[in-house]
Amino acid sequence: MSDPLHAYIVSQGEELLTGQTLDSNSHFLCGQLTDLGLRVRGAITAGDRVEAIASALRLAADEAAVVVCTGGLGPTSDDLTADAAGLAFDLPIVLHDEALTQIETRYRDAGRPMPESNRRQAMLPKGCTVLENPVGTAPGFAVTTPGGRLYCLPGVPFEMKRMWTQQVATDLAARFSISPPERRLFRVLGKGESQLQDLLGDLPTLHPGIELGFRARMPENQVKLVAPQGHPGMDEAAALVRARLGRDLFAEDEGLELAGAIGQLLLDRGERVAFAESCTGGWVSHLCVSEPGSSRWLERSWVTYSNQAKQDELGVRAETLQAHGAVSEETAVEMARGAREAAGVDWAVAITGIAGPTGGSPDRPVGTVVFSIVGPEVEHTRRLRLPSSGRTPTRRFSSFIALDMLRRQLLRAGAAQG
Amino acid sequence: MSDPLHAYIVSQGEELLTGQTLDSNSHFLCGQLTDLGLRVRGAITAGDRVEAIASALRLAADEAAVVVCTGGLGPTSDDLTADAAGLAFDLPIVLHDEALTQIETRYRDAGRPMPESNRRQAMLPKGCTVLENPVGTAPGFAVTTPGGRLYCLPGVPFEMKRMWTQQVATDLAARFSISPPERRLFRVLGKGESQLQDLLGDLPTLHPGIELGFRARMPENQVKLVAPQGHPGMDEAAALVRARLGRDLFAEDEGLELAGAIGQLLLDRGERVAFAESCTGGWVSHLCVSEPGSSRWLERSWVTYSNQAKQDELGVRAETLQAHGAVSEETAVEMARGAREAAGVDWAVAITGIAGPTGGSPDRPVGTVVFSIVGPEVEHTRRLRLPSSGRTPTRRFSSFIALDMLRRQLLRAGAAQG
Repeated sequence: MSDPLHAYIVSQGEELLTGQTLDSNSHFLCGQLTDLGLRVRGAITAGDRVEAIASALRLAADEAAVVVCTGGLGPTSDDLTADAAGLAFDLPIVLHDEALTQIETRYRDAGRPMPESNRRQAMLPKGCTVLENPVGTAPGFAVTTPGGRLYCLPGVPFEMKRMWTQQVATDLAARFSISPPERRLFRVLGKGESQLQDLLGDLPTLHPGIELGFRARMPENQVKLVAPQGHPGMDEAAALVRARLGRDLFAEDEGLELAGAIGQLLLDRGERVAFAESCTGGWVSHLCVSEPGSSRWLERSWVTYSNQAKQDELGVRAETLQAHGAVSEETAVEMARGAREAAGVDWAVAITGIAGPTGGSPDRPVGTVVFSIVGPEVEHTRRLRLPSSGRTPTRRFSSFIALDMLRRQLLRAGAAQG
Repeated sequence: MSDPLHAYIVSQGEELLTGQTLDSNSHFLCGQLTDLGLRVRGAITAGDRVEAIASALRLAADEAAVVVCTGGLGPTSDDLTADAAGLAFDLPIVLHDEALTQIETRYRDAGRPMPESNRRQAMLPKGCTVLENPVGTAPGFAVTTPGGRLYCLPGVPFEMKRMWTQQVATDLAARFSISPPERRLFRVLGKGESQLQDLLGDLPTLHPGIELGFRARMPENQVKLVAPQGHPGMDEAAALVRARLGRDLFAEDEGLELAGAIGQLLLDRGERVAFAESCTGGWVSHLCVSEPGSSRWLERSWVTYSNQAKQDELGVRAETLQAHGAVSEETAVEMARGAREAAGVDWAVAITGIAGPTGGSPDRPVGTVVFSIVGPEVEHTRRLRLPSSGRTPTRRFSSFIALDMLRRQLLRAGAAQG
């Protein structure tokens, strides 16, 4: 097996070094480069000084053929990446008409005049390839370095990701001989990393040459199989993983989220869902509407945050609220029944809980969340006490748990019919 | 102004470079060091090769007096930080009885025998100060380098944080003379980074010694002022920024989000709001419910994704939908009026749009979003065409724009009264 192509990451931005911004770009790029079969040798972060950025770029280019740099392409005086690349590789900085046209077009399309300061974004190293930014004003660029190639992308994550996927990954594949290993991804809910290790730890012994990896993405866990392209045991190993994971496996595709998996199950059954959200406050619906085409299976939802709203919108009885409280099995099931009837749908899911930091009591502490799913011949209600890790994690976990409970009920309903 | 003490971060671990683990330690340490008044000059990540770690440590020590390294202190053969520190600074690696005792004690307290492999964790550079790990087996260490001091801490975040706070921060303060700078933060909506540069670029000239910085957090932009403690022009500079930003400034506090600023405005007025969300699908409500105590000002919300739901829940007329379509000023204002009436609240905000990727038409392309705000003697409806940057960014922008429009209407209502 030949030595893999080396890569190095450079992140630029004083805000990364002051701790204001978490550098998620490097994490993304490390994963992407690794998936392409490159070995990332290191990553370096430089602040807003042109010499520091230039020396980071030189160090990176000494260590690896492929250097990917993010940040510092904006229009302000602390955006110095182009200048630094020029300094590092002895390239004059010149106005690129192509880049200027792209920036002007972005402003024209938005119906706004281009501020004079944005001209700066078209000042790029001579001889570079301009990388179009389809979702922002900062163009990127690529230059050939003495030992390979340097790609500079904007620091805004969604702009960077779009340009990585559409332009850099393809340019890399075209220029360098890359043979990405084969990867299989299994996305899991309901099992922790040590449980997965116990369940699947014997796999590399059963299938030599296949690497097993785990990644925690709370509350999701991921299992990965990696082997050289065309490994004869890959399909069999994947079948083994699938069989052992059972219904804890919700997707085998990075692009299929939990809500998307639910959408597919609902579309297959010709059914629709509605949500009645209290503590999740719209997060469950938001995850569903993130999926293109969700209007075919999400009919409507309510954020019934007040008791009055629970009564008005979902027909929860005042006596139920009074006798059992808003965070109770009795209220949750009435919320779900009411949502199902009002929306005229097959399935309804209700979530009511205490996200904190206040509102807890000895018998219903912060983190208590009640879920209810009502569907064709199904009423499933469950109270959980989530670890008290803060309002946002509690609401996020609750949202994923609600969706995962619905997914399992849909699978159960399908199995009962099949 | 004396040059601040410089720091550099070294992160060690192959799992960081394969994208398996996000390096949250560097982010934490950058923030901590900055708050102490140090300037973090850079951060570098090295994988599991002793030469790479040693050269990262040397680079860091060349750049900064204070080097903080995390990771690579475990008992396995890929834990190489002590060896690398020895190699980098020419220190022999010897058994430290003090470290061994700490490890043995941790095992004895847990009622387990110490595996032989853990002896390795007591092999540290000669002359180092052993840093006790009160919550794990890996001790840390500090050594004096030619230009300053190197602190090596374990990579497990909660162990690292505990040791940072209890041992490193205090050792730093004792050894170096440290004076934290003053920082002012201004959070802006409605102005881009280049507009802010044009608006405020003269500030460092007007107030010498005060640094001006920008950060894009799309759609939010941030302006930062940094100066040594007690800089006499800071208040005046901050007042200037405030005056020039006007209503585009929504917060001066990292902890106050847009939804929180709206919550304060509503609480001040004793008013409540309801949302009628179509394309945003619950995201606006979710942002509001993220704020603790939002039940005092968010009454309820609807995700009226289907036309039927818009009619049933909000009383939008069938004729309006038929004549003007779901994404129209006419529908949006009926949604907002209906939400306001059904919830019995002072303010209602409706959002209806085409988030894509499909559903666009020549006169209503993907990215067309209509917002309507109805409040006491206010009806404000606006159609925007957002840049076609994808379903999720379009929905996210729409959610922030909806909240920002509400914020501006609340300010206007307050000014009219005041």
